[in-house]
Amino acid sequence: MLGLAGIPLGLRFRFLDPSAEAPAAEVGELVVAAYDDPAALVRLAEGADAVTYEFENVPVEAARSVRALPPARALELGQDRLTEKDLFARLGIPTARYGSVADAGLPALVKSRRLGYDGKGQRLLHADEPLGQHELAEELVSFDRELSLVAVRGLNGDTRFWPLAENEHRDGILRVTRAPAPHAPTAAAEELVTRLLDELGYVGVIALELFEAGGRLLANEFAPRVHNTGHWTIDGAETSQFENHLRAILGLPLGSTAARAPSAMVNLIGGTPDVAALLALPGAHVHLYGKDPRPGRKLGHVTLVGAHGDVVDEAIRLADEASC
Amino acid sequence: MLGLAGIPLGLRFRFLDPSAEAPAAEVGELVVAAYDDPAALVRLAEGADAVTYEFENVPVEAARSVRALPPARALELGQDRLTEKDLFARLGIPTARYGSVADAGLPALVKSRRLGYDGKGQRLLHADEPLGQHELAEELVSFDRELSLVAVRGLNGDTRFWPLAENEHRDGILRVTRAPAPHAPTAAAEELVTRLLDELGYVGVIALELFEAGGRLLANEFAPRVHNTGHWTIDGAETSQFENHLRAILGLPLGSTAARAPSAMVNLIGGTPDVAALLALPGAHVHLYGKDPRPGRKLGHVTLVGAHGDVVDEAIRLADEASC
Repeated sequence: MLGLAGIPLGLRFRFLDPSAEAPAAEVGELVVAAYDDPAALVRLAEGADAVTYEFENVPVEAARSVRALPPARALELGQDRLTEKDLFARLGIPTARYGSVADAGLPALVKSRRLGYDGKGQRLLHADEPLGQHELAEELVSFDRELSLVAVRGLNGDTRFWPLAENEHRDGILRVTRAPAPHAPTAAAEELVTRLLDELGYVGVIALELFEAGGRLLANEFAPRVHNTGHWTIDGAETSQFENHLRAILGLPLGSTAARAPSAMVNLIGGTPDVAALLALPGAHVHLYGKDPRPGRKLGHVTLVGAHGDVVDEAIRLADEASC
Repeated sequence: MLGLAGIPLGLRFRFLDPSAEAPAAEVGELVVAAYDDPAALVRLAEGADAVTYEFENVPVEAARSVRALPPARALELGQDRLTEKDLFARLGIPTARYGSVADAGLPALVKSRRLGYDGKGQRLLHADEPLGQHELAEELVSFDRELSLVAVRGLNGDTRFWPLAENEHRDGILRVTRAPAPHAPTAAAEELVTRLLDELGYVGVIALELFEAGGRLLANEFAPRVHNTGHWTIDGAETSQFENHLRAILGLPLGSTAARAPSAMVNLIGGTPDVAALLALPGAHVHLYGKDPRPGRKLGHVTLVGAHGDVVDEAIRLADEASC
């Protein structure tokens, strides 16, 4: 999606991916190697005006060696849930209680500190027990809703925020994003993200996931990259997160992040519905990633722009039916 | 632009182009050969769900041999200005007077019947003189403005019209398109295009160029393809002409052709302005085609969505400055 957004800007792409099946090959040159392969990193960066990443588990040293943006420090702090939470605490960004089980209280959500995503590596604890060395306990928050704020900051510090999005997860995987979120605590959320951006000397797109609980905002995690809860911006916002990420890391002026219309994005997980059925929905824009189906794998998404609730429900039904 | 629109739909592309420098190679496989090379045509169509063209001077027999859509008959009738005008006449679509210089009246615009585009192969005649065998005289119309209607018709006959666009040419080359055109004679124009679509059993995107003169609409020419005066739809309409063209020829449901906001498209001709300067304009979306600069060549365009007149003027100024 970065490549598709960048080609019209006259950009050309080289991608590094451990898989020869990486769909990015459709829109640029593909270097197939491990993320930390020194020769591949040299090849990746050769002649490039900018290097970036869109997967938060790329090795920090690899990102640093090619001077990737967003800054490797954001990647480093975000890769460990403990340093991430400590960063939030240091910046006065409220979070659920965390640390040992005693710190978090019971019931506690135990998460691996590293390499967890889409709910993997999480378990619920109802009684105190020692944690593994690489685990972290978090207070189980009873929240009203999940929100996310996607923002972009340019090389010159210019910062824009897309409207807050409201997210529904299932089995730890993002299922639906609706944006702009109704009755959104916009100013409060933007203020929290600004602290992060300033602290990290950030450049590029960032996403902050938040719980709204009894009128309070609690930061859950941030992602130093374009984010699934920002995919609706391709069709639903004046400038997409992908285009603005590229503009940011290249020092180009940022585009408007205003919503064009209320939008909903439905992930296509594990299987893909009939494209014709999706396109028959009013306001539907289909995005398939060219990946082989696999249970729990995000294969694409459909965005409904300006669509009513029943249209979104129908898209969810089609996605569920095809899901496996 | 067709490739960029189709990849998110899960489509993959193979392109036939006589030039190895064809920019389409960025988004698919490129077969370099003449348009009428039999082996290349076989290779082009091999395994394809649909074949189309986006250049109206591809040989009719080549298009027919691969069962291209829009139907080859549309291509055939449109390639010769005389058969095109005769088609308009047969369908009761008003045009300027045409034929011999006597038919057209003086002053007359003399055009080559074939292979003219961007004003090439045209001359103004102030006195009667015999025409060449492959020439056609047309009444020089003193029009109020130039309009174009871009429409799309699906395999099942479902038809959608984008809003009428108002166009400014210079030296025979399209310079600016504004859409939706103010005070547009929408119903009348849609009725004319419908006659064409029905007659041709049309599938895909079509553009009809019109002169508005003293309240009358006169058809100038039609293009059986995605059209430069429809480029604004990428950013300014709910569904772009490129996406709907693909949906149409593949038998998929068509998307809404409504405008998202008033838009202006400015062609970048002969040279490309500084991309940062263009992107600094409110509502700007830049599209570069990856072509080498050459005087009079369309190298890209910038669309200003929701932009005021002075922003559009500034874009025109930047384009002119870079033009050569």
